Amino acid sequence: MSRIREKGTPICVGIDPVYERLPAAVRGDSADRGHINAEGSIEAIYRFVRGVLETVAPHVPCVKIQSACFERYHWPGAEAYYRLVEEATELGLMVIADAKRGDIGISAEHYASGCLASSRFTDLGHLKGPDALTVNPYLGADTLEPFIKVAVQEGKGLFALVRTSNPGSDALQNAKLADGSVVSDLVAKMMAQSGGHPDLLGKHGMSLIGAVVGATKAQDAERLRKLMPQQIFLVPGFGAQGGTADDVRACFHKDGSGAIITASRSILFAYEKPKTSDWLGAIEQATVEMKKQIHAILS
Amino acid sequence: MSRIREKGTPICVGIDPVYERLPAAVRGDSADRGHINAEGSIEAIYRFVRGVLETVAPHVPCVKIQSACFERYHWPGAEAYYRLVEEATELGLMVIADAKRGDIGISAEHYASGCLASSRFTDLGHLKGPDALTVNPYLGADTLEPFIKVAVQEGKGLFALVRTSNPGSDALQNAKLADGSVVSDLVAKMMAQSGGHPDLLGKHGMSLIGAVVGATKAQDAERLRKLMPQQIFLVPGFGAQGGTADDVRACFHKDGSGAIITASRSILFAYEKPKTSDWLGAIEQATVEMKKQIHAILS
Repeated sequence: MSRIREKGTPICVGIDPVYERLPAAVRGDSADRGHINAEGSIEAIYRFVRGVLETVAPHVPCVKIQSACFERYHWPGAEAYYRLVEEATELGLMVIADAKRGDIGISAEHYASGCLASSRFTDLGHLKGPDALTVNPYLGADTLEPFIKVAVQEGKGLFALVRTSNPGSDALQNAKLADGSVVSDLVAKMMAQSGGHPDLLGKHGMSLIGAVVGATKAQDAERLRKLMPQQIFLVPGFGAQGGTADDVRACFHKDGSGAIITASRSILFAYEKPKTSDWLGAIEQATVEMKKQIHAILS
Repeated sequence: MSRIREKGTPICVGIDPVYERLPAAVRGDSADRGHINAEGSIEAIYRFVRGVLETVAPHVPCVKIQSACFERYHWPGAEAYYRLVEEATELGLMVIADAKRGDIGISAEHYASGCLASSRFTDLGHLKGPDALTVNPYLGADTLEPFIKVAVQEGKGLFALVRTSNPGSDALQNAKLADGSVVSDLVAKMMAQSGGHPDLLGKHGMSLIGAVVGATKAQDAERLRKLMPQQIFLVPGFGAQGGTADDVRACFHKDGSGAIITASRSILFAYEKPKTSDWLGAIEQATVEMKKQIHAILS
């Protein structure tokens, strides 16, 4: 969080690379091999993400790396993913691993160890791992404990899915409970309670357990902000999914703290519209433009 | 499912290997290196799981492989995981990949491609992938669509988390809704509806979307069975977690079909109590014993 205060910009670039949408110059040799070569595809993705990270690092404090985009390429994808987490860290970026893990008991411990903790494996190099991990709370607050343990030990964080940005999330997350609230309110209260333990609070009173609240759910943000005063909101869905600067205003505290706004495709693929071969220039311009939009609502 | 009917035993062995609990003979050279060597640890796990698969394959139709145990070892772990899925398939076992994935839009497509689909990557070998995948429904029914698409195309299946076996699951999954039902009932109805489409039903009228219902939640099984008549129940928590044969009775239809009972640690680590160096013998004996217990309630 200190990096967000330093850079003065609560913005996160979502790294959701898709081979088929890479600039022709980056796809390079592996272009004609298309899907069928995992190593060639993932090498191109790796080059692309390297370029993106170097381009956005001077402008934003934070990136969110989407695990699914890499898992698609099996173990070579996993290696690229772990390596890029380290590269982003070396560039001074805070790294949120967007892997949405969730399981019970010892399986949750394994995920906490593999997806969040720094690594003790000498043969793979000492990986620092990401600064934070997204987790799925459907299995219950007890299943987050192994993740919390790692986060406390290593000064890292979690973002629990509370209210997601997709249209179909309403059927469950917005279902009415007997007490008049909705399911995502209950999850919010669970996260506020788990995250409210004094050991989990930082010097600004915010918890290491944050919450994912989609930018497209503006009508819920104000209520969730009240239910989770100590949770940092990670707010995806800005840009390509339709969330606007106005939509995310209620995710912030009155002093402009407490939320990180994430845009992925609108920045990552900014070179597609208008089409330009200067893909890094287009990505940089889209990043600066998003900063302006968010600053405007915070000033 | 035809394999379950052939072998006449609705039993699944959960493959949740933990390096520290492997038999000394299998830990072998890498024992003294302990945690710190990822390749050494995962090679031992690989040898262990190979032995387990060969031992249980004549007795049971199905294994469930826990992704977290492998992800703990980063990309070498991922490679071992994918290779073991193929080995289990070659041994004639139905393979459930227990990865509990869930995400929205194109990220869900990537997970469906990476975690469930057969692979088009020539450089990694043509991987058939698992027969089924566990998925987390918290993000909504729309997020399951990419998984369903792959399942229909490739004749595979899904198991959505409905009622999990951990104690802390009650706070959310058992929370009262305004209509008098509970949250897991709503998820059950969502899965029954999504899974009830004629394209998703097999020749015995069961859907390719199944449901995870923990063996420790016997009090809910009967109600969930009624809400999801076409869902195959994957029932973990038998054995080490405390679920008994009596507890799982209500998960079956009256004709003894419709459920797969999973035991993991009680079979996998059967050589620990009583301690024996004949670890494969102990695992085989525990498998046969569990078959007897389940057959007793079905006859």
